[in-house]
Amino acid sequence: MGEKLRVGLIGTGRIGLVHAISIDENKDCELTYVADVFIDGAKKISEQFGGKVTSDPLELINSGEVDAIVIGSPTPTHIGLIDAAIDAGVHALCEKPIDLDLKKVDAMLEKANSAKTNVSLGFNRRFDPNFESIHQRVQAGEVGTLEQLIITSRDPGPAPREYIAVSGGIFRDMTIHDFDMARYFVPNIVEVTARGANTFCDYIKDEDDFDSVNVVMRGSNDELITIINSRHAAYGYDQRLEAFGSKGMLVASNLAKTTVRSYTADHSEQREPYMEFFLERYAISYRSELARFVESVKTGKQLNPSYDDGRQALFLAEAALESAKTGKTIKL
Amino acid sequence: MGEKLRVGLIGTGRIGLVHAISIDENKDCELTYVADVFIDGAKKISEQFGGKVTSDPLELINSGEVDAIVIGSPTPTHIGLIDAAIDAGVHALCEKPIDLDLKKVDAMLEKANSAKTNVSLGFNRRFDPNFESIHQRVQAGEVGTLEQLIITSRDPGPAPREYIAVSGGIFRDMTIHDFDMARYFVPNIVEVTARGANTFCDYIKDEDDFDSVNVVMRGSNDELITIINSRHAAYGYDQRLEAFGSKGMLVASNLAKTTVRSYTADHSEQREPYMEFFLERYAISYRSELARFVESVKTGKQLNPSYDDGRQALFLAEAALESAKTGKTIKL
Amino acid sequence: MGEKLRVGLIGTGRIGLVHAISIDENKDCELTYVADVFIDGAKKISEQFGGKVTSDPLELINSGEVDAIVIGSPTPTHIGLIDAAIDAGVHALCEKPIDLDLKKVDAMLEKANSAKTNVSLGFNRRFDPNFESIHQRVQAGEVGTLEQLIITSRDPGPAPREYIAVSGGIFRDMTIHDFDMARYFVPNIVEVTARGANTFCDYIKDEDDFDSVNVVMRGSNDELITIINSRHAAYGYDQRLEAFGSKGMLVASNLAKTTVRSYTADHSEQREPYMEFFLERYAISYRSELARFVESVKTGKQLNPSYDDGRQALFLAEAALESAKTGKTIKL
Amino acid sequence: MGEKLRVGLIGTGRIGLVHAISIDENKDCELTYVADVFIDGAKKISEQFGGKVTSDPLELINSGEVDAIVIGSPTPTHIGLIDAAIDAGVHALCEKPIDLDLKKVDAMLEKANSAKTNVSLGFNRRFDPNFESIHQRVQAGEVGTLEQLIITSRDPGPAPREYIAVSGGIFRDMTIHDFDMARYFVPNIVEVTARGANTFCDYIKDEDDFDSVNVVMRGSNDELITIINSRHAAYGYDQRLEAFGSKGMLVASNLAKTTVRSYTADHSEQREPYMEFFLERYAISYRSELARFVESVKTGKQLNPSYDDGRQALFLAEAALESAKTGKTIKL
Repeated sequence: MGEKLRVGLIGTGRIGLVHAISIDENKDCELTYVADVFIDGAKKISEQFGGKVTSDPLELINSGEVDAIVIGSPTPTHIGLIDAAIDAGVHALCEKPIDLDLKKVDAMLEKANSAKTNVSLGFNRRFDPNFESIHQRVQAGEVGTLEQLIITSRDPGPAPREYIAVSGGIFRDMTIHDFDMARYFVPNIVEVTARGANTFCDYIKDEDDFDSVNVVMRGSNDELITIINSRHAAYGYDQRLEAFGSKGMLVASNLAKTTVRSYTADHSEQREPYMEFFLERYAISYRSELARFVESVKTGKQLNPSYDDGRQALFLAEAALESAKTGKTIKL
Repeated sequence: MGEKLRVGLIGTGRIGLVHAISIDENKDCELTYVADVFIDGAKKISEQFGGKVTSDPLELINSGEVDAIVIGSPTPTHIGLIDAAIDAGVHALCEKPIDLDLKKVDAMLEKANSAKTNVSLGFNRRFDPNFESIHQRVQAGEVGTLEQLIITSRDPGPAPREYIAVSGGIFRDMTIHDFDMARYFVPNIVEVTARGANTFCDYIKDEDDFDSVNVVMRGSNDELITIINSRHAAYGYDQRLEAFGSKGMLVASNLAKTTVRSYTADHSEQREPYMEFFLERYAISYRSELARFVESVKTGKQLNPSYDDGRQALFLAEAALESAKTGKTIKL
Repeated sequence: MGEKLRVGLIGTGRIGLVHAISIDENKDCELTYVADVFIDGAKKISEQFGGKVTSDPLELINSGEVDAIVIGSPTPTHIGLIDAAIDAGVHALCEKPIDLDLKKVDAMLEKANSAKTNVSLGFNRRFDPNFESIHQRVQAGEVGTLEQLIITSRDPGPAPREYIAVSGGIFRDMTIHDFDMARYFVPNIVEVTARGANTFCDYIKDEDDFDSVNVVMRGSNDELITIINSRHAAYGYDQRLEAFGSKGMLVASNLAKTTVRSYTADHSEQREPYMEFFLERYAISYRSELARFVESVKTGKQLNPSYDDGRQALFLAEAALESAKTGKTIKL
Repeated sequence: MGEKLRVGLIGTGRIGLVHAISIDENKDCELTYVADVFIDGAKKISEQFGGKVTSDPLELINSGEVDAIVIGSPTPTHIGLIDAAIDAGVHALCEKPIDLDLKKVDAMLEKANSAKTNVSLGFNRRFDPNFESIHQRVQAGEVGTLEQLIITSRDPGPAPREYIAVSGGIFRDMTIHDFDMARYFVPNIVEVTARGANTFCDYIKDEDDFDSVNVVMRGSNDELITIINSRHAAYGYDQRLEAFGSKGMLVASNLAKTTVRSYTADHSEQREPYMEFFLERYAISYRSELARFVESVKTGKQLNPSYDDGRQALFLAEAALESAKTGKTIKL
């Protein structure tokens, strides 16, 4: 590429910082603009990685100084910013979920699908080298016909009550990554059954949300997909995948900082706890996500999950919530 | 024990042979009688391990020459044989399931519960050293409050059509072991949700049965229990357990014959496929099961799963079947 | 075999008990005679497993009531007992080492080699399923040309001073198993280099012995063989093997009682310490050793390590000791 | 740091490229000058990472436009370049070995030790997160007294004959990394014993060099250190470490690109081959090495292995070669 892609970053919280680092490390990008309604956050990122600063995201989008934006601001702002980006001819990579309200998402669907600019959703886990490798090997037929998929996803600890209160609930906020992972392997899901439980966190219960859930889905070829979630895990971030098919199985396990194992009078083969959370665990996948987005912009191909993929994941989340509430399997 | 326990074996098929070996190896037992309506099977076992021979199980039970029986004959015979054993004052260890019809099981429940002789059910997996170790450690509080239990159980290959036809379906025939394993950790289960699929075996589908199932259950403390089953697994018998709690997790993995790992230009850390099937995989657990049964007889304590445990597992199987057929969660 | 092999056991210490159990479990053997100069030991074994009792091993050998003997008495008695067994036409399986004095061993060599009865040495590790599997796979060419062999052997803790004092030193007492393991893979060894150290045990040093040693040997095809020994290991009995060749590597690791792994805030993938010592770790190999010996007796084939193998291992031990003392590589 | 460290790179072969990448990624450095007698190599690096170009390393050193140099040119040039750097007041990070001739190394020792600028040796493996973690944990007393250290180091495949011919032999070229790793844990080594073999590579033999070696060293506290080397390994780059002490053991194993394991009818738990070679395997350690060097320059502390460490490793290599030739243990 002759010139670098001029990227604007909207939202400078924890996930915004992740994207700022990715933009900074990507040789084909330049961070030219940073927006946050809390201007101090924007200034802090700008000092470290460069770029103009504004408290108004629309100013950034319409500045003519960005070719693309990365949206890491709160969920309720996502649709409006995507909308503005399309109007301004600016490419957009937006964090999940698109919105907590499927109707609002649907209202933008046609516009997003027919946009001349790229609209991508930040389901970064598709780019994790472990899951990507399993995906490629399953596609290549290594396990034969895919019959069962088991996705284990446990956070190290629960988000604070303030976050939970506006999160849209565990299915829309946390499981949504696993819904997308399921669709990465089985795009056409025909049935959702879900159960939720409250095992350890009072304030999650008080917010009428679950701290642990279990989702079983069926693909159109009768694949059974299982998702196991918990909002905590003592031993670190637990992110595993098991793809079981007629000829065998492929399994991805967790990551620790070293391979070191300890042996004493008390134990053998002991490793350290796993990587703490998504910033560390998915560091590579966030960088790859951005690289694919840049390549998408350059080639005009949709290489990342699309707006429609974002909608589908949300649709599954809604179905799961309904199933968990009613005790009925939801046919899609 | 001054004298050896005189044991009669009823049924000399594959599982009968397993029990004959256990009886032969147990220093506190003597195989004194073998019964099978196919007399040749009985003769074969007798030649190898000793004991009188008959084609009539009732003759064996009422001979006065057995203190206890092990029932490994076809399922429809179980209740009648347990009934006869109680009447004859003979202790009984009976293979699962008690029967395919819950009503018949219930009709015997009071008699079995109040029997002066021991009536035990052959849920051998409770005695597997790996699962037993996890159970002890969970009881000791090592993972804190138990929140999630994941049971993976895949057979190496499907039973033949003739077997499937009379098996009572996968929930009553195969998953029943996993229902008991679930109850080993969470005795009080309040809810069952199940999904079934037909992914690879036409004759199982033709018999109106599933080849793959997924069950989610809820315990009275809001524990979520997941069972994942398949009637086949290319890499051998897949029997795993994951107990997840507030303070950590305990996981039991599969067994291979050796610890040998191979490293070549194509791969690293490769092990051989897992042990082929239950005879090998659960060899120790079958022996321990018998040893506990013998100890139960000697001490008058119920150390093995009881008739009621057998009934509970069947009850869960029925609920799972109903859930799989209706798409509704079944409250118990 | 029409009749059972009548076996006499000489020596009823820890290793004698191991052999008594093997004889008892082997369907082709019967323990008919037990000898120990400490008659109480003999009586104890006899009560548990049967057989006549004597305090005179020669009485046992010449009784006409044994077809074979297993020698587990102290090392200085071995040669005399083998000698007597040959004279009496009785087969002999003798514990390692044959003797601490190579000259005495050599004096019996021709007689042992030309004996009409079987004379076998108790290098049980050749029959460990893990090492045997690697051996078979190496023989089958799976790693190509064998280039390096690494044998790790660490005892859980040092033997008491009294034992060390008469053990003949670590090379003859402990490493001798590893010398035989080396010769199992590389029968023709042409060079020995050894280093010894005193790192943790004062009384071993006071006995002019090493608590840790390292031996490097060269096979006739320029294979380099490494032995690493310690008289202690905090995490249990450490018995590993690594066979490295032109096409790859095969590695056997340690055994624990279960496959259970634990995950907490402090660690992940933790297993329990390894099996405590040789009785547990090599239980199967002791039974297989006896089974091969029985088969050798029946078929007239030498299926176990021979008297000459016993001599070769001792020869390597002597060379290692010389090398450790002189700091020179010993050419054989 | 107000300003970036201006770094000159000398030598633009495979290892030069590694350093160029590290310099480029390090925010505290700037690549200002690149020298290679093959000017095209220098130009290629310059185009990608910036910097002036010269075919004369001394021009670079004396340009006044570099604060520090990284020396990755052929071994015979190392001493002269270090010498010139000291004279020019330029800091130097030099690849191993310093030279193949210990006398030449010694001739510069006093000057290097008393230099006002930093002189560091490129033993990058000390900065591998796995080995560094073991080192820290050993220092913290986690394994008690260190008693044995086993270093396995096998290259994926042999260097070409041209390289071997000028390499100084396997001890000076390859094992030298392991000598430094040994000294990382046991700085004071008092004895070296080495054996070499020719198992697979004719041209290495023709060059009077070994393709496989085994070194046993003794530390001043009677630690036994074992190094196992091969110039090839079918399954990838084999770099392991085992630290064994009175209280336990710490082990670092190999790295693969993913955690994915495969299970089929042929195998279980199979991983892909290990990372190919040092560029991938030690990518992080090369970056950390440079970061420490930069920090050394800034703080005036010696945080990397020193010129003297480089000399010590070479000294051990010489001793090993003598031992391998004479069959005698060399006391230091």
